[in-house]
Amino acid sequence: MSVLNVDKFQPGLSVDCVILGFHHNELKILLLKLKDLERWALPGGFVEKEEDVDKAAVRILRERTGLKNIFLQQFHLFGNVDRNEEAYADILLEKGIVDKELYDWLDQRFVTVGYYALVEYSRVEAPTPDYFSESCEWCSLSNLPNLWLDHGRILEKAHETLKRQLNYQPIGLNLLPPRFTMPELQALYETILGKTLDRRNFQRKMMGYGILIRTGERRTGGAHKSPWLYEFDEEKYRQGLADGLNAGW
Amino acid sequence: MSVLNVDKFQPGLSVDCVILGFHHNELKILLLKLKDLERWALPGGFVEKEEDVDKAAVRILRERTGLKNIFLQQFHLFGNVDRNEEAYADILLEKGIVDKELYDWLDQRFVTVGYYALVEYSRVEAPTPDYFSESCEWCSLSNLPNLWLDHGRILEKAHETLKRQLNYQPIGLNLLPPRFTMPELQALYETILGKTLDRRNFQRKMMGYGILIRTGERRTGGAHKSPWLYEFDEEKYRQGLADGLNAGW
Repeated sequence: MSVLNVDKFQPGLSVDCVILGFHHNELKILLLKLKDLERWALPGGFVEKEEDVDKAAVRILRERTGLKNIFLQQFHLFGNVDRNEEAYADILLEKGIVDKELYDWLDQRFVTVGYYALVEYSRVEAPTPDYFSESCEWCSLSNLPNLWLDHGRILEKAHETLKRQLNYQPIGLNLLPPRFTMPELQALYETILGKTLDRRNFQRKMMGYGILIRTGERRTGGAHKSPWLYEFDEEKYRQGLADGLNAGW
Repeated sequence: MSVLNVDKFQPGLSVDCVILGFHHNELKILLLKLKDLERWALPGGFVEKEEDVDKAAVRILRERTGLKNIFLQQFHLFGNVDRNEEAYADILLEKGIVDKELYDWLDQRFVTVGYYALVEYSRVEAPTPDYFSESCEWCSLSNLPNLWLDHGRILEKAHETLKRQLNYQPIGLNLLPPRFTMPELQALYETILGKTLDRRNFQRKMMGYGILIRTGERRTGGAHKSPWLYEFDEEKYRQGLADGLNAGW
């Protein structure tokens, strides 16, 4: 018997999860180090025959990393023929990690559905690796290890999607503390965009969205002039998520 | 021999195309009327084993409708188990439209990748139906016929995606004449959004995007005060497509 009962799964269909973590103004990604290989992979897996693809993504993320209660967003299907060109099944068979049945399963053409989430990573439980992996770690986006197959491309596409979403969706709730300063919010945007923003334009644009409340209190104790503390107007924030932020249209 | 050589295709994977047409300030959708059934379907089909999914979408659209040179944009994978719950293969077998081999193929679970395009429909060649369909027509979005399977949901999701894209992507090139008035551009937005927009806000926001050039000429001959003619600054338009329109970030 194989480590995986492949008859349970839809043929040729997989799911991969891009879990981006934000912590101390840094973007990280959760990756699995594959056993006996100098390669890292996105947490991914297969879809059961009687399972919705969106639900499979949640289950796979939990099984492969121990992470629960993560809101996953589908962003793209990767369906090129050459995405499986690396003879990865061969390597696994050779190393004795998979048997012949599982080898044949892995050797077919797969299309994969990409999901992503942005989380405050100190709030998630300790991730744990699965059978195929020897460890599960947060890796720095600016210093990525060698990635498996087209996982680098999948990560890149997820990051592009996230950047684009900054133009029409609010971000920050559950990533920042309940009360935060404008420079802290700006740092979140700058980290995701990978560039510096003009302080005044940022403030004007953010206030224009109507999702921030200035609390009337200031952060004290820093070296600089004490900045105002803000919080999200949660109702308007959720409305912005649903309708888009530039809903002047 | 079946009408379709099913061995050529990836199992369980299909593609559906939402082709929205804009003409005389109306939104239409291209649908196929299925043979012997009071149901209409999006142009769709299967992915060949040696074919990229994106390329399959282009081929399928051409084969099923005769449409060429359409830029298709992938927008979502529909992967719920119950999306195939309608006993459609049974009906086709009963009506003698498919044989047993094709029946078994159609009866499996499919996930489908949605693609969409917005086109000026008078510019596309006459659409022609395929083997499964008796006609291929532009139908009004406001008065849809009975749709097959979850195709109503797929259409809705495509329309939502298009509305959201108005918030960060330019639109109008190849849909409007080379020179157009601000009211004509506004009508395009209003048609897609399904609501009336404030004239002055619209103009201010559009000009703020920096993608329009006022030509210095006016449209004459109408009953109203002759409006200015605009054209797109194609370089900035394409930059807006690539980087997003609110690229203040």
